[in-house]
Amino acid sequence: MNVYALMTSAGINIAICVVLFSLYSFLRKHPSFVNVYFGQKLAHKRGKHQDPYCLDSCLPCSTWIMKAWQASEDQLLEAGGLDAVVFLRAVVFSIRIFSIVGVICLFVVIPLNYYGQEMRHNSITTEALAVFTIENVEQGSKWLWVHCFALYAITCCTCFLLYHEYLDIMKMRLVNVTTSLSAPSYFTVLVRGIPWSREYSYSDTVYKFFTNYYATSYLSHQMVYHSDAVRKLMSDAEKVFRRFKLPMAVPQCRRRFMKCGLCGGHPPAFRRLASEPEPQRNDFGDSKLGRKECAAAFVFFRSRYAALVASQSFQSSHPMAWVTDPAPEPRDVYWANLCVPYQILWFRKIFIFVGSIALVIFYLAPVVVVQSLVRYDRLQELQNIFPFLKGLFQRRFMAQILSGYLPSVILMVFMYLGPPLMFFFSTLEGYVSRSSRKRSACVKVLFFIIWNVFFGNFLSGSVIDRIGTASDVATISTQMARAVPVMANFFMTYVMTSGWASLSSELIQPFGLLYYYFYRYILGYKDDSSYGTLTFPYHTEVPRVLLFGLLGFTCSVFAPLIVPFLLVYFFLANLVYRNQILNVYEQKYNTGGLYWPIVHNSTIFSLVVTQMIALGVFGLKQSKVVSGFMIPLIIATILFNEYCRHRFYPIFKKTAAQVVIEMDRRDEASMRMEDVHANLPSSYCQFQASCITLGQPIPVHDCESGNGVKV
Amino acid sequence: MNVYALMTSAGINIAICVVLFSLYSFLRKHPSFVNVYFGQKLAHKRGKHQDPYCLDSCLPCSTWIMKAWQASEDQLLEAGGLDAVVFLRAVVFSIRIFSIVGVICLFVVIPLNYYGQEMRHNSITTEALAVFTIENVEQGSKWLWVHCFALYAITCCTCFLLYHEYLDIMKMRLVNVTTSLSAPSYFTVLVRGIPWSREYSYSDTVYKFFTNYYATSYLSHQMVYHSDAVRKLMSDAEKVFRRFKLPMAVPQCRRRFMKCGLCGGHPPAFRRLASEPEPQRNDFGDSKLGRKECAAAFVFFRSRYAALVASQSFQSSHPMAWVTDPAPEPRDVYWANLCVPYQILWFRKIFIFVGSIALVIFYLAPVVVVQSLVRYDRLQELQNIFPFLKGLFQRRFMAQILSGYLPSVILMVFMYLGPPLMFFFSTLEGYVSRSSRKRSACVKVLFFIIWNVFFGNFLSGSVIDRIGTASDVATISTQMARAVPVMANFFMTYVMTSGWASLSSELIQPFGLLYYYFYRYILGYKDDSSYGTLTFPYHTEVPRVLLFGLLGFTCSVFAPLIVPFLLVYFFLANLVYRNQILNVYEQKYNTGGLYWPIVHNSTIFSLVVTQMIALGVFGLKQSKVVSGFMIPLIIATILFNEYCRHRFYPIFKKTAAQVVIEMDRRDEASMRMEDVHANLPSSYCQFQASCITLGQPIPVHDCESGNGVKV
Repeated sequence: MNVYALMTSAGINIAICVVLFSLYSFLRKHPSFVNVYFGQKLAHKRGKHQDPYCLDSCLPCSTWIMKAWQASEDQLLEAGGLDAVVFLRAVVFSIRIFSIVGVICLFVVIPLNYYGQEMRHNSITTEALAVFTIENVEQGSKWLWVHCFALYAITCCTCFLLYHEYLDIMKMRLVNVTTSLSAPSYFTVLVRGIPWSREYSYSDTVYKFFTNYYATSYLSHQMVYHSDAVRKLMSDAEKVFRRFKLPMAVPQCRRRFMKCGLCGGHPPAFRRLASEPEPQRNDFGDSKLGRKECAAAFVFFRSRYAALVASQSFQSSHPMAWVTDPAPEPRDVYWANLCVPYQILWFRKIFIFVGSIALVIFYLAPVVVVQSLVRYDRLQELQNIFPFLKGLFQRRFMAQILSGYLPSVILMVFMYLGPPLMFFFSTLEGYVSRSSRKRSACVKVLFFIIWNVFFGNFLSGSVIDRIGTASDVATISTQMARAVPVMANFFMTYVMTSGWASLSSELIQPFGLLYYYFYRYILGYKDDSSYGTLTFPYHTEVPRVLLFGLLGFTCSVFAPLIVPFLLVYFFLANLVYRNQILNVYEQKYNTGGLYWPIVHNSTIFSLVVTQMIALGVFGLKQSKVVSGFMIPLIIATILFNEYCRHRFYPIFKKTAAQVVIEMDRRDEASMRMEDVHANLPSSYCQFQASCITLGQPIPVHDCESGNGVKV
Repeated sequence: MNVYALMTSAGINIAICVVLFSLYSFLRKHPSFVNVYFGQKLAHKRGKHQDPYCLDSCLPCSTWIMKAWQASEDQLLEAGGLDAVVFLRAVVFSIRIFSIVGVICLFVVIPLNYYGQEMRHNSITTEALAVFTIENVEQGSKWLWVHCFALYAITCCTCFLLYHEYLDIMKMRLVNVTTSLSAPSYFTVLVRGIPWSREYSYSDTVYKFFTNYYATSYLSHQMVYHSDAVRKLMSDAEKVFRRFKLPMAVPQCRRRFMKCGLCGGHPPAFRRLASEPEPQRNDFGDSKLGRKECAAAFVFFRSRYAALVASQSFQSSHPMAWVTDPAPEPRDVYWANLCVPYQILWFRKIFIFVGSIALVIFYLAPVVVVQSLVRYDRLQELQNIFPFLKGLFQRRFMAQILSGYLPSVILMVFMYLGPPLMFFFSTLEGYVSRSSRKRSACVKVLFFIIWNVFFGNFLSGSVIDRIGTASDVATISTQMARAVPVMANFFMTYVMTSGWASLSSELIQPFGLLYYYFYRYILGYKDDSSYGTLTFPYHTEVPRVLLFGLLGFTCSVFAPLIVPFLLVYFFLANLVYRNQILNVYEQKYNTGGLYWPIVHNSTIFSLVVTQMIALGVFGLKQSKVVSGFMIPLIIATILFNEYCRHRFYPIFKKTAAQVVIEMDRRDEASMRMEDVHANLPSSYCQFQASCITLGQPIPVHDCESGNGVKV
């Protein structure tokens, strides 16, 4: 590929981006699409019981770019939670570090590479891209020291920035914990593996256990039910309800009663009376329902510290019984997985682990095909075998398309199928919260994407190279060193197709638009209020940003032409994601910044891979001393990572007793504890109706006035 | 090697064993060596203030074999603690499983191998050992299915036995926890990483922190001091003491006062008054001593549960400050490591990790040399190069020695140097208890010995094989499959030399005898009371037993002749170790059965390695279907291990809250808690003297009567 081919590819992509960005600026003004483009604001307004269509203030013309740019971190925190801030921090971190890399590489490394050996340079547009890479430097050249020190400088800057970001985000997380004072999850412990007994129901067993061992701090508990069983009971209840036709329940109210089991995110149709706390246990006489209980429960404690202690302790001498964990936030609970017996979770985890590896291996096949497409010189050999292709390959434009654009598109399409599969795997794995499921999917997708896009291309590239040459025993480092300058061309087009284009598609939300059309004009719903909002797809976007980081680092010193394209991507990403977080995605659950350790580890991994490649490249260039200088850098990078893991990571895993005790004290001093206790038992409702009907006084909601009436 | 050479080797080793066992039966009767051979009983008697020489009852003639054999598990538990019982269980487990393996292999596999192909058999003594191995079975033979099912049977029996042993030992551990009611470690938490402040001493900081956050359960605390600083102070104190010549301190008493910092294992010379508990903090005005405090302390709590909670919680939002861990038993504390700043422990661990790997790699060199010696046919090639060796190699006896005995001795000598180095590494790693240090050394030595003896021999064997043949890309499994039948000969002699001989040497304690001579006749000590006793060297003996298990499993189906030799080893080991635990080694500290998970994992590893080799062997024998049948077995074995890890291992890591709460309740009901609280502050004494002099009323021990007198 030469400079002209690169320019062609860039031109196509820039055109697509401009078209799509303009389209977005037009579409977002249209009131029909307000559900697609302003889901977040809409959900916010809906919560405040305002008319959802009075959104004129949120619909400026094309000033959205400025709005997104000017949004402060506090605004973003409010709109998207800590996770969104962390994600944007990762993007900004990439901008910062690649600006530094860009300055180092464009002003120092590229001129060195270009004049690396005595040769006659063509005009710049027909110049092969290889002359800008380290391939063009002579064997054993003294100039390789400059490459070495450039890598040292890049590593130092990256570590410095990483350290400060980690420290900042750790502080933000601590603030996040202390400000979420009223969250019921701090008072709650999720108990799984409740032992089964012939005499007592699970609920009774839980009550006995906690009143015995946690008598002073135990408040109440709430069982988890098999959802199918309860859904059956609810339909039975509805029949009874219809037969008696309670005079005070108006039809709308009944309709809500039917639906509340399905749409858990909405405010409860029947509110419990705030003035009547129920600190007792939720036991009930219905033996039929008792048999439908799962061996899992939420147990509420009187203080955050008591809940913390109970969640950290190892309760019984049977390790698979009475397993306690900190409870997720009520909106974050993934109820379907709570009923999975704890005893088989380990098996599921292994199964999924093996399955994920199998999937990653299976995906190498299309990547190899794509790789064979990208190598135009090899494709031309095909015309000798299939003569009818001859005409196709002789057209110049076709050649440009084939070598510059098509392969990335095919790869991108294949890559789109990976994340949903990984998300499904994470669901099967048995996570009890939506946020941890998404985080786990994020890690899986990260491995998937790095293996398939990055290593897959390297490996398949070198496999194709080998066909002609004799096989030799080369180390992985040398293999990759050989492949880097060749693969850099492909990665440059990949940044444009997968990076730039995906941002446009993110902005314009093609799936959202299609779904909205389907919902409105095919299903025929007129009321937009039940049209749900999406949560931010961290499991696809975090790995994508990190992949581009990896590409940037590994190509930085060896083929620096990629850096400007990456910088454009990160700038656009910052803008687009800010806009999306502020307008489109709703924050339903949050991991509290747990994505940062993933970003950190991935960046360190990218650095080490770069250094390993450098080791190989300098070795190939016959500069053993320069190559040896990479080893202390690798060791130092790994030690830095270990330090950060010990210094910061524990904060992301556990809550400190000190923090929790002080929160309890503050609440007790301000007499808020009673209120919190009163609201606790109603906070985790698996089925809104079941909380009301099962063994508790039944307050019936007066739909007109909004006041509770006790029957 | 043929059967005759094997017999020669066995003859030499049996002779050595008989001589050494007889020597032991003679030496143990001699009263001079009572310190060497009855250290455990002596220590026991000494504790009861009896005359150490009235041991006639412990000195029967040669009935020691019967005594060791008849000792019940309770006696062993009393003498050696749970660790000793676990270790002997591992030996008995090996006897059981290799009896089964022996029956399967000797009656099914060996006849199959011997008549595996059409050939004329020589007389049995000149038969090559290879005819008893799987090498003798024809390619693609149907009989390989028998080998396959034999392996299935062995795996099933092993897993069945392993499961029941793990269950048994888990129960023993739980009983062990509940019976050690009065142990002070249950009430104590070790705090490290105490933040430094300019205004307050560490002691004040600890007092403030725990009275603030653990006001209801905090009892008192005790700082850890830099030992050099305190030793200096103590010698100063001694000078003062001499000058004033306190009239009530008799000379013996003063002598103990001087020594107590050095011999921590003895009962405290100065007992605190049991009737005067000190629930206050141990603060003191001496600012000079205050500056010598370490950032570590033992904090005592009012109940076991409170201590458990404090040790499991993550205290502060700085992960390297206020690090709490369960405290080790007082006699188990390794004081020197308590002062290592917690902030650098992670670095030490990485350093040691890398160092251990380097050591393991370095040790491959002598193993390769040994391997080249064991291959007699290659040695004979040497005489072509060095003609003066010709005479040596032509002597038949010399050849037998060279191929059968010498290599193992060389290997053994090299192997003796490994464990002390690994133990030193574990010390550097910063473990705060002697038991965990020894356990860590055990794991390191296990890796060391398995890598060097087992894999080292395989790898070097195949490297030597390769010299003549063309290099080909073979999988590890196939490589090992090729090597097994060849290496089995070497391993048989290794069992005899390293196994049998090491047991004799263990029995006769050559180092103990030498040291005793040195102590008594060169240093000239006449009083035996300060001659210390040893603790059981788990870090060398556990890996040795496990290595023989690995050799047994890997050779079982392929070269079953090794099994009888192994069974003899395990029977002898059972006898010898029982005797040593009952008589020689003192139980100073205990991990509470934590060696069993190591035994379990190692056995599973051995099984999987065996199955991998089988995969290779059946592949080499052109039986792809039989080879494929190994894969489900490998998967099932790994799943079984995962199940055990989830079912049993947590019990070995953490103490259950339920158990601890019930222990507390029992104590409170029987009014014993007050006594326990009274004794707590004096239980952890880094320097016996310092506990008395620093900021507390000074009770001086009346050496004659044994009663405390307060001054």
